[in-house]
Amino acid sequence: MKKIRIGIAGYGNVGIGVEKAVIAAPDMQLRAIFTRRDLSALDIADPSVLVLALDEAENMTDEIDVLILCGSTARDLKMQGPRFAAIFNIVDSFDAHARIPEYMASVDAAAKNTTAIISTGWDPGLFSIMRALSESVLPEGAGYTFWGKGVSQGHSTAIRGIEGVKGAVQYTIPLDSAIEAVRSGGRPNLTTRQKHMRECYVVAKPDADRQAIEEAIKTMPDYFADYDTTVNFIEEGELISRHSGMPHGGAVLHSGRTGKNEHMVEFSLKLGSNPEFTGSVLAAYARAAFRMAREGHFGAKTVLDVPLAYLSKKDRSALIKELL
Amino acid sequence: MKKIRIGIAGYGNVGIGVEKAVIAAPDMQLRAIFTRRDLSALDIADPSVLVLALDEAENMTDEIDVLILCGSTARDLKMQGPRFAAIFNIVDSFDAHARIPEYMASVDAAAKNTTAIISTGWDPGLFSIMRALSESVLPEGAGYTFWGKGVSQGHSTAIRGIEGVKGAVQYTIPLDSAIEAVRSGGRPNLTTRQKHMRECYVVAKPDADRQAIEEAIKTMPDYFADYDTTVNFIEEGELISRHSGMPHGGAVLHSGRTGKNEHMVEFSLKLGSNPEFTGSVLAAYARAAFRMAREGHFGAKTVLDVPLAYLSKKDRSALIKELL
Repeated sequence: MKKIRIGIAGYGNVGIGVEKAVIAAPDMQLRAIFTRRDLSALDIADPSVLVLALDEAENMTDEIDVLILCGSTARDLKMQGPRFAAIFNIVDSFDAHARIPEYMASVDAAAKNTTAIISTGWDPGLFSIMRALSESVLPEGAGYTFWGKGVSQGHSTAIRGIEGVKGAVQYTIPLDSAIEAVRSGGRPNLTTRQKHMRECYVVAKPDADRQAIEEAIKTMPDYFADYDTTVNFIEEGELISRHSGMPHGGAVLHSGRTGKNEHMVEFSLKLGSNPEFTGSVLAAYARAAFRMAREGHFGAKTVLDVPLAYLSKKDRSALIKELL
Repeated sequence: MKKIRIGIAGYGNVGIGVEKAVIAAPDMQLRAIFTRRDLSALDIADPSVLVLALDEAENMTDEIDVLILCGSTARDLKMQGPRFAAIFNIVDSFDAHARIPEYMASVDAAAKNTTAIISTGWDPGLFSIMRALSESVLPEGAGYTFWGKGVSQGHSTAIRGIEGVKGAVQYTIPLDSAIEAVRSGGRPNLTTRQKHMRECYVVAKPDADRQAIEEAIKTMPDYFADYDTTVNFIEEGELISRHSGMPHGGAVLHSGRTGKNEHMVEFSLKLGSNPEFTGSVLAAYARAAFRMAREGHFGAKTVLDVPLAYLSKKDRSALIKELL
């Protein structure tokens, strides 16, 4: 069987996660990595993988079946999505929930003869699947999404922008009291503060005003002001040795009723590495994009449009026999 | 918008569960119930719902968009699946895992101009989705399915067949030790006995030999011999007052690895009523069958073939905006 030829656009943490997943997939071949990084500084183990500047992607349309976009939602995808969907089947993890409809429309307009599966990963992605599935089956009910415990890159970056901060890592932590309240079936209305807390590990510059840093974090609008936040000042060595991992996870709970009976649906992820898991999801959806394109299902798609059998390396009859 | 006209074939516990779900769905109309029961004895609240003998279904093809088969897998579906798929779009909950490929082939051969979504419900059904999704995303790993705590009708019936037994209810109970072993990430090989235990509540006939009943239960091949089983003799009043519910549930766990990182995916259901929840799943897949038929996707399908957006009463753009 001919392997699915994969290209990776963007070689940060998620791109490296995709690389691992593609190399491990027997039905895929990693054909090229496109990056804006210094090519000579990249150490790609497999000499059959081309490492090229991002702007060379347009010349490689005959060599690649699916291009997996691993750039940043904030900086890259708005431009790259439509640009590459016009000439490649693509998969991405565009994760700015509020802007998905607008992004989807722009990708859909470009993907005339290609399949573009946008906003995969785990949220949006697997969590979206769980929200839609639960709500469809139990429409009389309420859904809840919790994130963590895990590192939020956005919040960590926000702390690093404060004067006097040398380094920082922020953990988002779902509150057990909230999860238990949902599990009890009462379908509570939970405030932002009741659902999650934020735990910060901060390395201050010498002579920095730690009290001012803590105050700046805790009162930062959008990021921290609506949460109970703890700030722990630590040494740089400890930040590196104990807070360099990228674990994450979360849960989607749905509490619903039929007749006089209560039901609970619960889905949770505990991820040792957020970018590696995200990369694995992207790789599975690349397989789906390849198959959907082959069948002529063009345009922008989401995880809600993809039959799940398309994600598996197994053929449909094996899946039905072994997993149904 | 024209409502989806639903027929229910088989008016047992699951059929009644489907009825509740369809009545609650704003985009569906319950058109007819087909049954082999005594029609005069049925009490259907809504006078616009036709109540007909099962053999009248063939005359109603113009009146029904999707026929939901609620008969027994063991007794009814093998015949009813192909029979009704030839003339209706159908949905069923055929749940004999080992015989699904054979059943699917027979339904597929009949469903030339119809859509037949077989083996929905929660296992097979939602649990199949979770097994396929987890394995596709984390192929280096192992999946585990646990059932319960809940009433197993098959095991309860098996006990009732023993001489001297007047009534019985059997609960399947997953063992916490097994679930914790999976959560620990060690990907253990678990025996049947290590995964579940069986708890039986039995009403003995007067003068029955209780020790012989207990022995007959605990040594029954396939059903109990491979499990740790407890047998509790109770009075009939207690069986009725405390064991008449039909709760069930279970969990699909998948423990997997990428690179050097471990991940856990966990999906669980706690169902107040097994037949009502199953009925709600069937109703959601009836919506999908209607939509797939309208688009010409004919033949036998499974939950792995159905894009999840087809399950929701919301249109695709609302789903993407609200739930993605």
